[in-house]
Formats: sequence, C-alpha cells, structure tokens
Amino acid sequence: MKKLMNRVDDMLAESLRGFGAAHRELVEVSTEPKLVMRRKRKADGRVALISGGGSGHEPMHAGFVGHGMLDAACPGEVFTSPTPDQMLAAAEAVDAGGGVLWIVKNYSGDVMNFEMAGEMYSGRSATVLTNDDVAVESSLHSQGRRGVAATVVVEKIVGAAAERGDDLAACQALGQKVNAASGSMGVALTSCTVPAAGRPTFDIGDDELELGVGIHGEPGRRRVAMMAADAIAGELVETICESVAPKRGQPVLLLVNGMGATPLLELYLLFDAAVRQCDQRGLKVVRSLVGNFCTSLDMAGASITLTRLDEEMTGLWDAPVHTAALRWGA
Amino acid sequence: MKKLMNRVDDMLAESLRGFGAAHRELVEVSTEPKLVMRRKRKADGRVALISGGGSGHEPMHAGFVGHGMLDAACPGEVFTSPTPDQMLAAAEAVDAGGGVLWIVKNYSGDVMNFEMAGEMYSGRSATVLTNDDVAVESSLHSQGRRGVAATVVVEKIVGAAAERGDDLAACQALGQKVNAASGSMGVALTSCTVPAAGRPTFDIGDDELELGVGIHGEPGRRRVAMMAADAIAGELVETICESVAPKRGQPVLLLVNGMGATPLLELYLLFDAAVRQCDQRGLKVVRSLVGNFCTSLDMAGASITLTRLDEEMTGLWDAPVHTAALRWGA
Repeated sequence: MKKLMNRVDDMLAESLRGFGAAHRELVEVSTEPKLVMRRKRKADGRVALISGGGSGHEPMHAGFVGHGMLDAACPGEVFTSPTPDQMLAAAEAVDAGGGVLWIVKNYSGDVMNFEMAGEMYSGRSATVLTNDDVAVESSLHSQGRRGVAATVVVEKIVGAAAERGDDLAACQALGQKVNAASGSMGVALTSCTVPAAGRPTFDIGDDELELGVGIHGEPGRRRVAMMAADAIAGELVETICESVAPKRGQPVLLLVNGMGATPLLELYLLFDAAVRQCDQRGLKVVRSLVGNFCTSLDMAGASITLTRLDEEMTGLWDAPVHTAALRWGA
Repeated sequence: MKKLMNRVDDMLAESLRGFGAAHRELVEVSTEPKLVMRRKRKADGRVALISGGGSGHEPMHAGFVGHGMLDAACPGEVFTSPTPDQMLAAAEAVDAGGGVLWIVKNYSGDVMNFEMAGEMYSGRSATVLTNDDVAVESSLHSQGRRGVAATVVVEKIVGAAAERGDDLAACQALGQKVNAASGSMGVALTSCTVPAAGRPTFDIGDDELELGVGIHGEPGRRRVAMMAADAIAGELVETICESVAPKRGQPVLLLVNGMGATPLLELYLLFDAAVRQCDQRGLKVVRSLVGNFCTSLDMAGASITLTRLDEEMTGLWDAPVHTAALRWGA
C-alpha cells in the first residue's frame, strides 16, 4: 500500500486538519465534545442540515458544509459510521431553533447511529434516508438499496430550501422527493485500499470491470470483461431508467461522479457517452455536474446519477452555494 | 490498460465534447478553422489570455477558460503540443483589440509552436513562459526548468489583471513576476499510462517513490523508498524554498495539486504536512488551493507549489473567477 500519509492511525485527523485549514472561512473543525465539521455561521432560525458517514468518500460530506448546503458533517473513521454522540454534538452546535434534518445514506451502521442520535437529541429532528443505488437490492452493509451519489443532489437542493426558510417538515418531504426522483449506479476498474487493511478490498483482473460496485468496494451486479465507455453508459443509464422511470421529454440532472482515482479526461468522456444515452431516451439533460463528489478512497471508476427535475428542484439546484466542493451563484 | 473510453483515437474529441456540454455557459468548443476551447464572451478591448499544451493535464487549460482567467485554450493530443495554426485560430477568435498574451509552459514543442504562432499572428502579442519546476534543470522535453502547476497561479492572477483592464505589457510583466515568485515540485507513486501507448510510461515498485517527477512522467531527481507525507512535504518545501528564497514572515500561496489519481483525503493530508513545513520556516500561508489542477492522466502523486505573494498579487488572486475548475467571488 502506497498512500500520502504518515501513520495510519493519524491519517483522518491530519487530513481533516488540512481541510479545516484550507477552508477556514467556511468550516470549523470542532473536536469538543466530539469531532464535528461545522459551518462557520449558524442558520439563524432556519432548519439545520446535518449529514455524516464513514470517511473515504471525500469531498462528501465535509466538502458540502457551507452556505446553501450542510450546517455540519460528522466524519467517522474510514468506511465506519460516526458515533451517535458525534451526531448529537453536531445537532447541539448548529440547531438555531428551526430543528435538525439528518441526511443519512442507507447503511445499517449509519441508520442505527443516526436513529440513536435522534432519540438522544432533545430538540426537534427529522430524517431523510438516501437509497439511490439501483445496482443491488441489498448489500454487505445495507438492508435495501445503498445511498450513494444522489446524496449530493439531496444535500444541495434541500440545503437551498433550508436557506430560504422552509420548515423542517417541508425540508424532509423535499429530501424524500429528490431521493425518490434519483437513481445511481457505478463501476469499478480497480479496488480501493482501506488504510487500516493495507491491501485492496477486492481482486480485479487487468481486463475486468465490476458493474454496480458500491462505494465501499461492495460487490455489484456482476463481474464482466472491460467494456467501452458507451456500453458502460448504456447499461448504467438503462438500469437507472428502469428504476427512475422518466418519461420522454423529462428534464433531468446528470451527475457523472468519479470514484477517486479517475482523471477528469475520462469523467468528461463518460459524461459525453451518458448524454448520448439520455438523448436516445428522449431525456433532456438540463443540469449537470462532473467531478469527484462521492468517492471510494483510491478506487478507479465512476458512477452515473440521474434525477428527474421539476421547476422547484431546478430553481433550488441553481440557488447560490458556497462550500469547499460546490460553489456557484452570489 | 483500463480506461473509461471507446476508441483511443476518439478519446480526446469525446472528452472535449463532454466538457463543452457540461460547461456550455462558459466555454465554446470551436472546431473551425481549428480546435479551440474559447470563452463565450469576448474581452471587449481587454488583453486576451491564451494558453494551451498537450492534453492529459485536465482541468488545465480548458477548465480555466472563463471570466477572470483565460480567453482560450488550445488542447493538443495527449502530451503533445497543439499546433501553431490552433494558436493562431485562438488569437483571431478572442483578440478584442487589447492584444494577445500567450501563457506557455516551458516544453520545447510548446515553446516552438507558440513562437511560430506569434510570428504568424498579425495582431500584437506577447509571451509569458512558466518554468516553476525546481526538481531538475533540464529534462526530456525541456531546455531549462519545466512549467508545471504554478501555471495555474499565473493564469489566475494575470487573468484578473486583464479583466480589470491592464495593458499587454503590464500583463506580461505581471505574469513573469508571478512565475519568478513561484516554485513547484512533485512526486509520483504510480506511473501514468498514455492511451496511445497502452502501457505505463515508467515502471515503479510497490514501495518506491519518484521524487521530482514531471507531469508527463519524466524522471525526477531520484527514485527512493516510499516516504511518509511529512518527509515528502519537507523535501519538497525545502527544495522549493532554495529556489524561491522567501524570507521569514513572507506571505505565500500554498497549492497542493493532485496528479490525477490521488484522492482528496490524501491531498488534504499533504496540505496539512506542507503547512507545518511552511510554519517551521516562518512562512505565512495566507492563501491556499487543494485539488486536481495540473494533472498527469491517471498518475497517483501530488505536487506542492509556493508563490511569494505581495499585496497586488493577493488582491488579484482574490478577484472573482468563473471557470469550470476555479470559481469564486461575484
């Protein structure tokens, strides 16, 4: 295993400290009473959005803390759920009277710990569970579909709604709607290597592709011979459409997400292939995003996410956002 | 070789088409008379900044086309200089009366072709050559130091000067000043693989590090056993400081740049290590940037760049920029 690191045990703390220093105008790395990456300015009576999960998916979630998106992120150890008391500390730090919305990716550990935090928290809170991965129905770490890159879309759109002052019930309903309108599926060309394990999570041949891989290297639908980008985009978009069921003419957001070790040259090529697949199905790609957003350490590969957009969701997507990893508007 | 692609011969065209579609509000992919990635809105009498070079370094340079940075980028084939007629086409497309500033990384092919374009172009033009790589004095493809990630800093700062209306001579002098105030050095953990070659550019062991690698996989200073991030940051910052010679108390911009296949978790960790190295030398890290900006296809590795900042350069760095890969301000 070769990684830019010192000791395995210090890796997360050093990386988060670096993140905090690089984005000190946006995010505060709070360690008392528990590790929380919190937005510098509080929400002023607005709903506070809190997400979190195992580390190794950067920039998710700390990279989405800031104006128009998250109020706090709770980073767990690599591929390990944060603890309920981290989530509780986050809620107590950022709830400004509007209550807390937990945005939780559907993995058993995350679901259990966020539930526990909700019970421990004395303020009002509600949950949005993301489960957009159409590849498999259940997996190593999840009952039901896994939550993957559409979580970024949920956080962006609901973050804009919270920023304009929507209440807790409205933010929760909107988050559930965005999740239901979204589907994702990924492929891996290589495995990731968890630092504490020191060796690749799975073996994959020089001519093989894992179709439908999870963001922790969980098995996907099947192992196949390496495919052309057009064929990959075709299978991913087809499988997503079976689930999301967009009609012809449907405006969609198309997100092509890198798994961590895939260069932009290839991500934009996959985006081009995915646009052509959408065109063939009569879908209108009206918004798009290409880059590394929901990653799997040093895995080479990518995922495609489609979200059916309506007018309100499009407007909220376009609303200003100012975070380390997403930034546009005023 | 596994890459997200269709045919090797179509890789660049498909990727650029995807880039153009994803960023159509910023950049136009112009193919007549020659391939140019051009800014949507012209410079209105202001100096037009044009850069370019071999592809494979994305988001450099097309990702820096837009408000406050480049007016056009000329992408060559992978690791191959663009042609003089591409550069000429770019100048004719974006010169709005203020003349053209060519920003050229110091590689023999690029230097020769940009010189030829300058001779062919009937309008006014001037050149800024970047040669910030302190690792080696000459290399496979360069006489003198190679131009690497400080090119991003030059393009950002001079782009802001052009946007506020500085004339051609002032923009050239500023670019030369920023380049002279900057030094960079990189490391590779793995080789890149050029698509047309189909195999890694160089062999490197599972426990080895190439110190001072070039962005085309050119040899660096030496091949060593894998080092801890603190030791890497120490050697890079030390070598850069020998060249850039900052005094104690000097305000600097610190850029930690990924080579393409290095996850953010590791880049922020290297940033943390580099900040501590700067602290030890009494340097003040007043501005920073962490991410993939000047890459080398699918190489795992990173580079560190330091730029001595003065008040004017800091203000121009902070000025609004709106491109695919850098975006802040109004």
